[in-house]
Amino acid sequence: MGKQVVTFGEVMLRLSSPGHERLGQAASFTLQVGGSEANVAVSLAGLGHAVRHLCVLPPNDLGDRVLRELRGLGVDTSGILRGGTRLGLNFCEKGIAQRPSKVLYDRAHSAMAECAADAFDWSLLLENASWLHLSGITPALSEACAGHALAAFREARRRKIPTSLDLNYRKSLWSREQAREVLGGLASRADLLITNEEDAEAVFGIHGSDPTKGGLDPQGYREVARQLAERFGCPQVAITLRDSHSASRNGWGGLLYHLGDGTFAVSPTYDIQICDRVGSGDAFAAGLVHGFLHGWTTQEAVEFAAAAGCLKHTVEGDFNLVTEQEILRLAAGNGSGRVER
Amino acid sequence: MGKQVVTFGEVMLRLSSPGHERLGQAASFTLQVGGSEANVAVSLAGLGHAVRHLCVLPPNDLGDRVLRELRGLGVDTSGILRGGTRLGLNFCEKGIAQRPSKVLYDRAHSAMAECAADAFDWSLLLENASWLHLSGITPALSEACAGHALAAFREARRRKIPTSLDLNYRKSLWSREQAREVLGGLASRADLLITNEEDAEAVFGIHGSDPTKGGLDPQGYREVARQLAERFGCPQVAITLRDSHSASRNGWGGLLYHLGDGTFAVSPTYDIQICDRVGSGDAFAAGLVHGFLHGWTTQEAVEFAAAAGCLKHTVEGDFNLVTEQEILRLAAGNGSGRVER
Amino acid sequence: MGKQVVTFGEVMLRLSSPGHERLGQAASFTLQVGGSEANVAVSLAGLGHAVRHLCVLPPNDLGDRVLRELRGLGVDTSGILRGGTRLGLNFCEKGIAQRPSKVLYDRAHSAMAECAADAFDWSLLLENASWLHLSGITPALSEACAGHALAAFREARRRKIPTSLDLNYRKSLWSREQAREVLGGLASRADLLITNEEDAEAVFGIHGSDPTKGGLDPQGYREVARQLAERFGCPQVAITLRDSHSASRNGWGGLLYHLGDGTFAVSPTYDIQICDRVGSGDAFAAGLVHGFLHGWTTQEAVEFAAAAGCLKHTVEGDFNLVTEQEILRLAAGNGSGRVER
Amino acid sequence: MGKQVVTFGEVMLRLSSPGHERLGQAASFTLQVGGSEANVAVSLAGLGHAVRHLCVLPPNDLGDRVLRELRGLGVDTSGILRGGTRLGLNFCEKGIAQRPSKVLYDRAHSAMAECAADAFDWSLLLENASWLHLSGITPALSEACAGHALAAFREARRRKIPTSLDLNYRKSLWSREQAREVLGGLASRADLLITNEEDAEAVFGIHGSDPTKGGLDPQGYREVARQLAERFGCPQVAITLRDSHSASRNGWGGLLYHLGDGTFAVSPTYDIQICDRVGSGDAFAAGLVHGFLHGWTTQEAVEFAAAAGCLKHTVEGDFNLVTEQEILRLAAGNGSGRVER
Amino acid sequence: MGKQVVTFGEVMLRLSSPGHERLGQAASFTLQVGGSEANVAVSLAGLGHAVRHLCVLPPNDLGDRVLRELRGLGVDTSGILRGGTRLGLNFCEKGIAQRPSKVLYDRAHSAMAECAADAFDWSLLLENASWLHLSGITPALSEACAGHALAAFREARRRKIPTSLDLNYRKSLWSREQAREVLGGLASRADLLITNEEDAEAVFGIHGSDPTKGGLDPQGYREVARQLAERFGCPQVAITLRDSHSASRNGWGGLLYHLGDGTFAVSPTYDIQICDRVGSGDAFAAGLVHGFLHGWTTQEAVEFAAAAGCLKHTVEGDFNLVTEQEILRLAAGNGSGRVER
Amino acid sequence: MGKQVVTFGEVMLRLSSPGHERLGQAASFTLQVGGSEANVAVSLAGLGHAVRHLCVLPPNDLGDRVLRELRGLGVDTSGILRGGTRLGLNFCEKGIAQRPSKVLYDRAHSAMAECAADAFDWSLLLENASWLHLSGITPALSEACAGHALAAFREARRRKIPTSLDLNYRKSLWSREQAREVLGGLASRADLLITNEEDAEAVFGIHGSDPTKGGLDPQGYREVARQLAERFGCPQVAITLRDSHSASRNGWGGLLYHLGDGTFAVSPTYDIQICDRVGSGDAFAAGLVHGFLHGWTTQEAVEFAAAAGCLKHTVEGDFNLVTEQEILRLAAGNGSGRVER
Repeated sequence: MGKQVVTFGEVMLRLSSPGHERLGQAASFTLQVGGSEANVAVSLAGLGHAVRHLCVLPPNDLGDRVLRELRGLGVDTSGILRGGTRLGLNFCEKGIAQRPSKVLYDRAHSAMAECAADAFDWSLLLENASWLHLSGITPALSEACAGHALAAFREARRRKIPTSLDLNYRKSLWSREQAREVLGGLASRADLLITNEEDAEAVFGIHGSDPTKGGLDPQGYREVARQLAERFGCPQVAITLRDSHSASRNGWGGLLYHLGDGTFAVSPTYDIQICDRVGSGDAFAAGLVHGFLHGWTTQEAVEFAAAAGCLKHTVEGDFNLVTEQEILRLAAGNGSGRVER
Repeated sequence: MGKQVVTFGEVMLRLSSPGHERLGQAASFTLQVGGSEANVAVSLAGLGHAVRHLCVLPPNDLGDRVLRELRGLGVDTSGILRGGTRLGLNFCEKGIAQRPSKVLYDRAHSAMAECAADAFDWSLLLENASWLHLSGITPALSEACAGHALAAFREARRRKIPTSLDLNYRKSLWSREQAREVLGGLASRADLLITNEEDAEAVFGIHGSDPTKGGLDPQGYREVARQLAERFGCPQVAITLRDSHSASRNGWGGLLYHLGDGTFAVSPTYDIQICDRVGSGDAFAAGLVHGFLHGWTTQEAVEFAAAAGCLKHTVEGDFNLVTEQEILRLAAGNGSGRVER
Repeated sequence: MGKQVVTFGEVMLRLSSPGHERLGQAASFTLQVGGSEANVAVSLAGLGHAVRHLCVLPPNDLGDRVLRELRGLGVDTSGILRGGTRLGLNFCEKGIAQRPSKVLYDRAHSAMAECAADAFDWSLLLENASWLHLSGITPALSEACAGHALAAFREARRRKIPTSLDLNYRKSLWSREQAREVLGGLASRADLLITNEEDAEAVFGIHGSDPTKGGLDPQGYREVARQLAERFGCPQVAITLRDSHSASRNGWGGLLYHLGDGTFAVSPTYDIQICDRVGSGDAFAAGLVHGFLHGWTTQEAVEFAAAAGCLKHTVEGDFNLVTEQEILRLAAGNGSGRVER
Repeated sequence: MGKQVVTFGEVMLRLSSPGHERLGQAASFTLQVGGSEANVAVSLAGLGHAVRHLCVLPPNDLGDRVLRELRGLGVDTSGILRGGTRLGLNFCEKGIAQRPSKVLYDRAHSAMAECAADAFDWSLLLENASWLHLSGITPALSEACAGHALAAFREARRRKIPTSLDLNYRKSLWSREQAREVLGGLASRADLLITNEEDAEAVFGIHGSDPTKGGLDPQGYREVARQLAERFGCPQVAITLRDSHSASRNGWGGLLYHLGDGTFAVSPTYDIQICDRVGSGDAFAAGLVHGFLHGWTTQEAVEFAAAAGCLKHTVEGDFNLVTEQEILRLAAGNGSGRVER
Repeated sequence: MGKQVVTFGEVMLRLSSPGHERLGQAASFTLQVGGSEANVAVSLAGLGHAVRHLCVLPPNDLGDRVLRELRGLGVDTSGILRGGTRLGLNFCEKGIAQRPSKVLYDRAHSAMAECAADAFDWSLLLENASWLHLSGITPALSEACAGHALAAFREARRRKIPTSLDLNYRKSLWSREQAREVLGGLASRADLLITNEEDAEAVFGIHGSDPTKGGLDPQGYREVARQLAERFGCPQVAITLRDSHSASRNGWGGLLYHLGDGTFAVSPTYDIQICDRVGSGDAFAAGLVHGFLHGWTTQEAVEFAAAAGCLKHTVEGDFNLVTEQEILRLAAGNGSGRVER
Repeated sequence: MGKQVVTFGEVMLRLSSPGHERLGQAASFTLQVGGSEANVAVSLAGLGHAVRHLCVLPPNDLGDRVLRELRGLGVDTSGILRGGTRLGLNFCEKGIAQRPSKVLYDRAHSAMAECAADAFDWSLLLENASWLHLSGITPALSEACAGHALAAFREARRRKIPTSLDLNYRKSLWSREQAREVLGGLASRADLLITNEEDAEAVFGIHGSDPTKGGLDPQGYREVARQLAERFGCPQVAITLRDSHSASRNGWGGLLYHLGDGTFAVSPTYDIQICDRVGSGDAFAAGLVHGFLHGWTTQEAVEFAAAAGCLKHTVEGDFNLVTEQEILRLAAGNGSGRVER
């Protein structure tokens, strides 16, 4: 069996109100599956990589459903544990114009959050790994999850398996202080650190431009990347750039800082009419990992990652259901949206 | 302000797969609101009674939604507390033919289950009550809920407010032993005890005919009612009769035993093509309470209650959205289903 | 241009709650088009006849919609007038088991009801007619409509165009006394009178078996047909037989009485699991007209008509969207419902 | 019982084609409830005010439905009369780009329009009122409604209850001449007059900038407000500013003129991607009333009102289902639409 | 890698009109995936077997979709070829009562039908097989498919891999003569032959009771099984028994004849309210294979298979999405359909 | 019978994923009917012209459906042939932002493509024609279709019936070389040639500005029109101008070149928020034909056509379901999208 990318994190059922309806007025919820690391796994599987996702799902119909969805999309689910009593849920309403999108978590006490401290044996699980990815959500779920995240990163370093960490700070899951300590420990063992200016500020107090003001300040973003790389000795640091005009329209791009030679690679900025922006950061992360696994240059990687993240904004649900060809076409400059027949 | 019926129990958001789809295959879930005692409250409000429902709802969009639904249907929600972190949920798939309906609870850690031991002050809350109703689900939710149930029944007895208890044993919430102890304590303080043969057997070991065999055995049902009334000194005991031919077709009726004079009132049996049978027991309970509040005879009451429960099988969702006139017409023998224009 | 069947009557937009939802709980209404005479017209067009439907539709989007629907199904709509301000509506919920279906009319002040007394010139409109059909709903709409109905029947008699009248008494539209007078006038000019026992009783006081009791009493039905034929000198009288077990299951059939030779032709009785029974009487009427236009025997005609009406119960909406071949197959005895591939 | 805001006006069932479908092509209509004054009532109830809405609803399933919806959203419906025969309806299609939204009224002969001249006893109904609001639609419905509107305003003045009038001229309901006379009478008794430039021009011939040309002309708007205030001796006049780029994108804001000191308070202008703009003027009106009841400055009030109206454009249906916190956050300048988790 | 069941046959996208709507009136089609042999594969995967399905899918979005669906449900799709230009489709309307269900094939020129004569190398593909199953549909698709079917059966016999053949005669795909020749050749190499009386008559002229008449004639069915077993030297022959009361209600069961000892095992007969009967024969076939792979007795196997097929009638779509536990519970006699909580 | 516009071309069932869902993720497909020439026919019928559409439809439920849709919209379908085995289909997903819309054809082997070489007798079919329109898709379907297209154009010229040809090059149907030869032959017989710059380049190698770059280059467009007119001796040549900012927003307009006097008429450019752009070119073509049939000036015609095409972008489906009044209002400059009540 060939090498596999390994991802680790909770997968939730997402219940979305139709169109732009508010959670309080919908007559039904549309069902989707997602979770930051699983989103990365699905992207990478779609891009042709062997990917194994690890998590705990409850032994009920909803857990089965999540497993089927991941397996259907080509993710190896043979390492997923079944246990616990409930599936993590989130309720999602899509904003428009001046009204923001809203994600209401209902994930406390989930099978994943309540996994045992010895549920995963990382020395076994990483035996065959070509890459390890997780986000800052996983360690925020519970102490056991934080323990697993750290153990996984330690084992990866021991085995010289490259790792990526997407900070993904969720203020509803833990405090800044808790996040700083745990994510700092992970960041110092990551080969690729991914974040945005807002989270870098929230978790590590690293300042940048004001994200609520709109307008991208590339200089601020670069500074954030440089400081993160130096503080944690992290070889590569990527920052996603988002200029929130409204819930309907964002500017979007990314940059990648290479600590070794001090160079910055910056993607073009896309002006996006948003369909569903949840998971765009994960699509970006997957794009970077894809680039690294192919040995692309930092410029190639960040351009691919930014185009992947741009397209995610146009796809319903958490998963970036686009092909490599579609991403490459956009990265090559064709975003005119002319009908394909 | 006039007297009010008081009901107490968790209200959940019910997420149902469309039509007869399985939970694992649905693309969306239809939203409904329900819970045994709230179902009774809604029925009674629809029948013209002033009803106040008590529970705890989380201070989020889903809690708001539940509250709006109850209030819209005429239930006084001014005593509902807001707190906790999550709303109790249940996922529901409707069976057909030989495949049973399935209700997957996700109600652990709900705002209601985690309510404080002193959240409700029963001496205040029952000041204005004309009746108190609750089901065996409420004390099964948590120790605090069991404490509130018992305190409410004690206070009602002190104030001579009539009470009804629907056993509603849920084996996924507690053990038979726990249920026996707590429900026995409540039953001995109830003026009206409602159950079916299956629960009487499961909780109190009182035997009757075999519910999986099909075919109603009126004699067995009478025996169950009599034994319950005598064991708990309960003035009136009602039993719902269900003959499960399949998930699509049931025979249905009820009987009411009057301990004082030892008489049985038995309703006709309805042969029902089922649309949604969840909440039919609650509709029956509400029918009985309606009859008692109006001073109807036991025969009148049980006929009305059985007709109400019959119609509930024809209505989507937990709530029995029918009028008193519709129930009376059916109770009077018109079940021919001819189009009304 | 060849001869055309002419039908005359209001066409409404029907707004139905989905599945078996009650009108008060639906989040949306499904749209259908229908009306007793238009239903007959659509059936006959589908059976290959040239049919012209006459009515008034308002000059707005809803009127356009109705016109398109009829034209799409092959009805000649060139004689439909546009005028008035509103389209007649009805809100429909489908019953199940002991809960009856319900049709809530909102058709007062419709373009059709408010048509002018001289809106239709019958000597012109019937110039090319092979048959004239209308139901007792048309004259119930307004005095002008009643005037048109009578004028049409008079002109038809003058031109020796055969006519059919389906009594279709609607108690929400007019009183029994009004109906008796007007419908009596039409019946005495009809070549074919169609009704059921209930309406014969309600309008003309002709007694039969009790329709709410269930169980078909063929003798009673025959008696009704004979009396109607004799009272109005009507050459042929058809009665639809409905045994309402519930809103979900009906026995159904028809009989046809020939005044000239005093013979009765009776169809088989179908035991029907109901999908949507609105329009089944119209499908039956169309089946009879079809038989007469083809010169079939009364036995052939009533068997075809009953099979057509049976199939209508299985089709959503007012229109009987089935083929002649499907009707003939059922009339020939194949109602086994085996899959066709 | 505390004081209540009183609103008076027809509430309709709104039947909307899904998405951007035309009325003529939709397979179903989504159901919503709305009406100018009820929209204000729902907004104010959501903002924490005790609000009582007055109208007439027919005693049928559709009337029940409307009543439940209002009651569920916290409006006191105890004063709503039941009578008449039909519910006012409107059919709505949402425009996009160069195709405008379209509202097809079907409200003639509604229960409200046909209410009796003595249906409402204003000396009783305003006993407990803290505010009275109505729009120019109410008096346009019928003579009786116009009579009630005037009687209500007179009684309010007698009791020194502050009143607001939103002109809301609907050319399909009455002529400019009729509107001028009746609305002039009401305006001269209003403490707060709300309108837009278009209606001021249509009803009172007061000129401003050309609304079809696009581009807001603040000077023109101020002039309109000043003239209205002076002509009717109205202490405060508010004008909503709308710059219609297309059916999808509008500029939006408001101004408030204070006759006493001659000052103008102007809100920021919002550039809005529209989800559903029906009811935005009502949301603005409710925002002003909310500000006045809280004793806010005119600047605070108009900023809150404009933000409330802005958010309404993002919510499906007539009702502004947003929280005070959401409005305040936008009024404070945060319209970036970043996801909330 | 362990042994795998191998199935071979076309997988189609099924486009079904909602509920009981006719194909000509639906506003949308629901999407499902199915095909006789894939249905067996999905059943077996759900029952815990390693299953590999072989077919050709076009390299487009629809082909991807089918592949994901199978993979998600646990079928090994690694042997599926991608090629050709179009996916086989079928349009399906579900009958009710006297109106039969209808499947409109649009599968000519599909990727599967046009597969090359050397597309599959059976000596490789069966290397690891524990069982081979296919139905009579596969050889009906094209000459190449017929060649593959025969080659597969020959190779299986060479390797002593047990095989099952479900006759599944489709008159729209080929003539009786063609079917007789090809299916005879396969039957003579099958270890288990599955069919119903209708197909046995149509293809091989073996007579039984009249399927359109209703009422099961066990003796006729036994005779058919015996004759088939003897004519083709087939060790085991199974017959599904279907008593078509209507499109809504069927009697259903199965029998299994063992040539060696001449014994018949007969299942109970289930009276079924039908949700979706497509795929019930495939569920039965999978149940038999499941029994044989577990070494169950013929009686155990046929009872399990009949229960599996019974439950399939209750599940939307072609796939039998039920668990082994659900089937065993029904086979053990519990078909009462009581709610599970 | 008056003169009729004649159109000739395949009509397909279009199966669209809901909203912006990808084909691979939709749970259902919405059904629409369309095809380039039928789209023109429907537009012209809606604008009041007598129009006859010619094509072949299979004799099944899907063919019936298409026929009903066209007939309902006022197109004369009496010349449509029934034959062949399958209806042409296309699967459509609507893009957004940088993700283009996608149309997946499944039209090979359709009834139309496989029509016989002598299926249509053009000398008869054009006897009563006032205009003949077809697009470059028709001859691309098969040799027989190409033959019919040419025969029709020849017969039209013989009868001096004006003709229009919309190039509509579809690279998935034929090669540039094939297209050049056949379309060149048709263009040289057309009175009005319609295309865009992209197709002129692809088919005839006539260069213009780069369509993927965005930004309209009117000079380039004029040059294309002039060259086409001169090369084919075509009296009038129209070019649609599309500036693809993204799949959501396009600039749009048109120009019309008059060979006789060498003048160019250019429409305003519309900035469009796109709902569904399929069929906009057909709406433009119909607008031109409408103008010519009314004898409008080239400026009037192109302005009307561009406004018609603009509005098509706002309507779901292929058909331009707008009224002449709506088009004229937009052409007169009112694109502000203000609500109409």
